[in-house]
Amino acid sequence: MRSHLRIFLTFVLALAAGLACAAGATAETDPLPSWNDGPAKQAILSFVQATTDESSPDFVPPSERIATFDNDGTLWVEHPLYTQLAFALDRVKALAAEHPEWKDQQPLKAVLDGDLKALAAAGEKGLLELVMASHAGMSTAEFEAIVTDWLAKARDPRFKRPYTELTYAPMVELLRYLRANGFKTYIVSGGGIEFMRPMTEAVYGIPPEQVVGSSIKTKYEMQDGKPVLMRLPEVDFIDDKTGKPVGINQFIGRRPVAAFGNSAGDQQMLEWTGAGSGKRLMMLVFHDDAEREYAYGPANGLSDTPFGTFPQSLMEEADKKGWIIISMKKDWARVFAFDK
Amino acid sequence: MRSHLRIFLTFVLALAAGLACAAGATAETDPLPSWNDGPAKQAILSFVQATTDESSPDFVPPSERIATFDNDGTLWVEHPLYTQLAFALDRVKALAAEHPEWKDQQPLKAVLDGDLKALAAAGEKGLLELVMASHAGMSTAEFEAIVTDWLAKARDPRFKRPYTELTYAPMVELLRYLRANGFKTYIVSGGGIEFMRPMTEAVYGIPPEQVVGSSIKTKYEMQDGKPVLMRLPEVDFIDDKTGKPVGINQFIGRRPVAAFGNSAGDQQMLEWTGAGSGKRLMMLVFHDDAEREYAYGPANGLSDTPFGTFPQSLMEEADKKGWIIISMKKDWARVFAFDK
Repeated sequence: MRSHLRIFLTFVLALAAGLACAAGATAETDPLPSWNDGPAKQAILSFVQATTDESSPDFVPPSERIATFDNDGTLWVEHPLYTQLAFALDRVKALAAEHPEWKDQQPLKAVLDGDLKALAAAGEKGLLELVMASHAGMSTAEFEAIVTDWLAKARDPRFKRPYTELTYAPMVELLRYLRANGFKTYIVSGGGIEFMRPMTEAVYGIPPEQVVGSSIKTKYEMQDGKPVLMRLPEVDFIDDKTGKPVGINQFIGRRPVAAFGNSAGDQQMLEWTGAGSGKRLMMLVFHDDAEREYAYGPANGLSDTPFGTFPQSLMEEADKKGWIIISMKKDWARVFAFDK
Repeated sequence: MRSHLRIFLTFVLALAAGLACAAGATAETDPLPSWNDGPAKQAILSFVQATTDESSPDFVPPSERIATFDNDGTLWVEHPLYTQLAFALDRVKALAAEHPEWKDQQPLKAVLDGDLKALAAAGEKGLLELVMASHAGMSTAEFEAIVTDWLAKARDPRFKRPYTELTYAPMVELLRYLRANGFKTYIVSGGGIEFMRPMTEAVYGIPPEQVVGSSIKTKYEMQDGKPVLMRLPEVDFIDDKTGKPVGINQFIGRRPVAAFGNSAGDQQMLEWTGAGSGKRLMMLVFHDDAEREYAYGPANGLSDTPFGTFPQSLMEEADKKGWIIISMKKDWARVFAFDK
């Protein structure tokens, strides 16, 4: 957790920055130029070929071409901590002056003191309290403005870039390639639905109505004769683990034919996708590239992490079920659009 | 409530019937041939013209062209009672043999005895218990099959037709006309999301992922090594009144530019839609045609009803806010596709 301490010191609140589009290079012949040749790339190309060719026994009608993507660690960086958590920490600090009581109230005190050890000790319950303090109490429109402003100004501590540039170029290419072949691409993430929506269209080409995520409750009310939706400090839905198939069924109402994740939180989404009839594609990004990005598991002997845990049991499950592992190190010719 | 009694006697469980598509007639020149000329039709044509012409000051980019429609009483018939309630009553009767305890348990006893007076006395809580008994305890896939089968066999007591034929031809034309002009059409209904989804694509051209509705909770679990989503007897979300803007924000994440309803349950959806900037279209179907369909309010002195109540206060609100009333009697050249 020591690395989190550095984040406090290194967040650079630069003033000018727009949402940057991680536009991958496109070639006439190769729809996936940021991918190295290998089993992962081949699996994608074969799947798209088989499901879109009308003469193929595996043909999938366009209306059923649903592909779901986890966000943190699958489409953008989730280390040294989730981007939304970095936002929550910044937000608590920004609001501290209005809330003198937070100085004596854990886990908020821990954030203000920069005491990551105490914050870690607060556990999941503490994180939830942090989210409630930083994500609720304003209207949905106000929250959107706050997130948009933060995303424009905040910088990742290692790469010194806006978080919206820390998307994986191969995955952005994959999203585009699938859409070009009639697939509807969705995000299905444990992250907050209203934290993601302000950026998904510009960054991934995914409109707000195709984002599924965790949420807190909102309440419709009139303020000075104008209707607003106020964000309440109350959990509505957690879109993680078994919540992912629940969210997919609730929001989309169809079973995906392809699903992409990178951690234990995605296992049930891949199971649910794979349990449908006909050809399916399930893939997991494995972070094994400390040089260009990060390396964590604990699968395959890599270090353990609370952010995007990939346990050995998931590796075994993938092997058993035929889910394809994307090795960041081997399968990706470049990681970010700004590489090379 | 006496009329409900007749339903029990007149449901004809015919064997053969497919989902029928209420395809409206289309003319080369008139996109809305089932509409009479008048202020309602003119409002629709002007709105579409103004929002889709790039040179217009009211132009709306395609990605923001979201139109939301209530279902019961706006797109299809809701009298003598909601179609989903007819389904629930049939379902309770079909399941009664497996549940001998229901004979002594209200409101289920009332359903089995055909005692609509006792059912009415059970109120909203009773209705909810009815839904739990008839809509929960099976997987989502099983429920979809049950609904599909029922919709194919059940007949409306007055028109002696499948419920899926009792859609309003002018509204189906309107859906098609909006889509032809780049609008994304959504259902936002108090009805059950999984009750509607099996028929919305065939009947309205609205895919499952564009249906927002009320829901019960589901739970992901493994059965014989296969994942299923089990439907629990627990309310998840009520998509009515103030719930409609909440549902719109949760599922779509954008404010609609056009919204269509027919009752007090739609008021907040129309308020929320109208509170956005730029040109908007809000319309309410008013059931004033007892001859071709039904006439109820209690607005304008028509009879009161628990199904699709249109109070005088809503009429006044519409007048104040510039929401356009669609008079079924005056504005619709025909009501159903099978008329004339």
